[in-house]
Amino acid sequence: VEQRLAPNRQVVLRERPVGIPQAEHFEIVEAPVRGPGDGEIVVRVEFLSVDPAMRGWVNAAANYSEPVGLGEVMRSFAVGVVEDSRAAGLAAGDRVVGMFGWQEWATVPASAVSRVVREPDLPASLALGVLGLNGATAWFGLTEVARPRPGDTVVVSTAAGSVGSVVGQLARLAGCRTVGITSGPVKTSLCRDEFGYAAAVDYRSPAFESDLRAACPDGVDVYFDNTAGAISDAVLGLINTRARIAVCGTASVPTWDPPPTGPRVERYLLTKRARMEGFVYFDFEHRLAEAVSRLAPLVRTGALRYREDVLDGLESAPDAIAGLYRGENLGKRVIRLRAGGQG
Amino acid sequence: VEQRLAPNRQVVLRERPVGIPQAEHFEIVEAPVRGPGDGEIVVRVEFLSVDPAMRGWVNAAANYSEPVGLGEVMRSFAVGVVEDSRAAGLAAGDRVVGMFGWQEWATVPASAVSRVVREPDLPASLALGVLGLNGATAWFGLTEVARPRPGDTVVVSTAAGSVGSVVGQLARLAGCRTVGITSGPVKTSLCRDEFGYAAAVDYRSPAFESDLRAACPDGVDVYFDNTAGAISDAVLGLINTRARIAVCGTASVPTWDPPPTGPRVERYLLTKRARMEGFVYFDFEHRLAEAVSRLAPLVRTGALRYREDVLDGLESAPDAIAGLYRGENLGKRVIRLRAGGQG
Repeated sequence: VEQRLAPNRQVVLRERPVGIPQAEHFEIVEAPVRGPGDGEIVVRVEFLSVDPAMRGWVNAAANYSEPVGLGEVMRSFAVGVVEDSRAAGLAAGDRVVGMFGWQEWATVPASAVSRVVREPDLPASLALGVLGLNGATAWFGLTEVARPRPGDTVVVSTAAGSVGSVVGQLARLAGCRTVGITSGPVKTSLCRDEFGYAAAVDYRSPAFESDLRAACPDGVDVYFDNTAGAISDAVLGLINTRARIAVCGTASVPTWDPPPTGPRVERYLLTKRARMEGFVYFDFEHRLAEAVSRLAPLVRTGALRYREDVLDGLESAPDAIAGLYRGENLGKRVIRLRAGGQG
Repeated sequence: VEQRLAPNRQVVLRERPVGIPQAEHFEIVEAPVRGPGDGEIVVRVEFLSVDPAMRGWVNAAANYSEPVGLGEVMRSFAVGVVEDSRAAGLAAGDRVVGMFGWQEWATVPASAVSRVVREPDLPASLALGVLGLNGATAWFGLTEVARPRPGDTVVVSTAAGSVGSVVGQLARLAGCRTVGITSGPVKTSLCRDEFGYAAAVDYRSPAFESDLRAACPDGVDVYFDNTAGAISDAVLGLINTRARIAVCGTASVPTWDPPPTGPRVERYLLTKRARMEGFVYFDFEHRLAEAVSRLAPLVRTGALRYREDVLDGLESAPDAIAGLYRGENLGKRVIRLRAGGQG
């Protein structure tokens, strides 16, 4: 492999951020592509993923995984094509999605592969979004943690986002009344017109709390929380008996070190006998194919819609996470690569 | 009934408290005992219950039940003997426990009865504590909400209290390592020596946080929370993956109007995939007999120990809730009555 390829370009972590990682925390370096060892594959990467959770992967504070080390390739989901394989069950030409990092070529053990992509009729990038991390997070978070019942009012924060939009649509398909929380007229329209929310509320409006109350005349049965913070405080005040709050992300909180303060939740949970439960995609990753088997047919019929925000080239990666938190994307953010020797 | 009885003395709510109800919020009045209507019974009350939850029953803020009205008899569990019955299935001489209010005689519909007490070998007052509200709260909160597994570290706040002490003992009997949080040397000793906690930590000590950490070398799998507040904050920092937090009470918080602030919990719940869930006894009251059938044998063999704090006479009732919050009781607080015409 080495001989026929241009050098591999990689995005490495240069400095450990406090809070949201910015462009200056990363550096682009070159390294030779390493041939596969026993049980390894070489992947030519087509798309890199950019996800809010990546903030947590580089912060030093305790998290659900070890933080990325300084000088290491930034951890990331990616999709690409196997160019060389010394791993059983994986062959050159297979399209695979997995934890390949922010780089153009990935030489990784077969265990880094989450799934072989078997939807040749659908865009490869979907394996990172609606048929990948985001779709599966929405599917399992909704069906296994939030567990809505037909007729429930389901509130979703970051409702137009790549997870939230799937949650909203799946909940509506399950017979729920869906209310989206997002920001600005473009995203509120998108929520109503494209993702089928019964109502969409702008959390930046001074009338947010009363708008939300008006949008939930029967209270809130399920809250799929991607933000935490003041948005969640407003939702908590509206929960019904036996409400379920699935904590999926904390996008509105710039740093958890030290943890910010807010109204205590215990009395809401006690008097409403409500359940607040955190989950992460990785707990369900071994069931990714199951989620895809439920989601892909919905994508094909158009029942499940998605948006993508495609950046071009590895050089757009360092600033890409900060851009998510600046709210500049509309849809799942991915980076399209033209790996050396392939462009 | 009317003719042969002295007047009924009752404790009524005179003024609505903000926060903890004090003696001056109540008044003792006299009223004739009313004979039973169709479907009603007349109960000669033997013991009144005094419970921390009664604070919530008189506060105006939204709760799980309608607040007690001004001028109404204070809502309360009580145990007593049926003196007259026009209700099917209940006969004079039956000992019953139910929502009879703070009064010496209660003329109530049969639906006010939670259970006919069928443990003549055990003290009647236990029907209010270890075999009543407290025991059943501990039983269902632990087995249905917290769901400990053998080997789990289970932390209990108000560990020497009438709910906490049962939780700690049941968890130990279920093969868990139990750590109690309480205050002062008397209660910490009681936790270790009488209720079998592996460790007991004094939350009033300046070393509380490090003491708690040292008492939980393997982290915390289950937290049975009776306090909320700073005590819970310290426990949250120690939870393990998949921890379960059963929110049973909020004793450490003087008022929820407005809600006090504290460190936000979302990131703990998310990164640890933990569950925080509130519950109240009333959700399980229809299964009270089931809990008693599990608890009474443990009381008889001495495997489940309890303490009582017995006050005498109806006149001790008005200050009795405030006294709980002053921490003056050691064990389940009950009030023993000598109803007029019976003493």
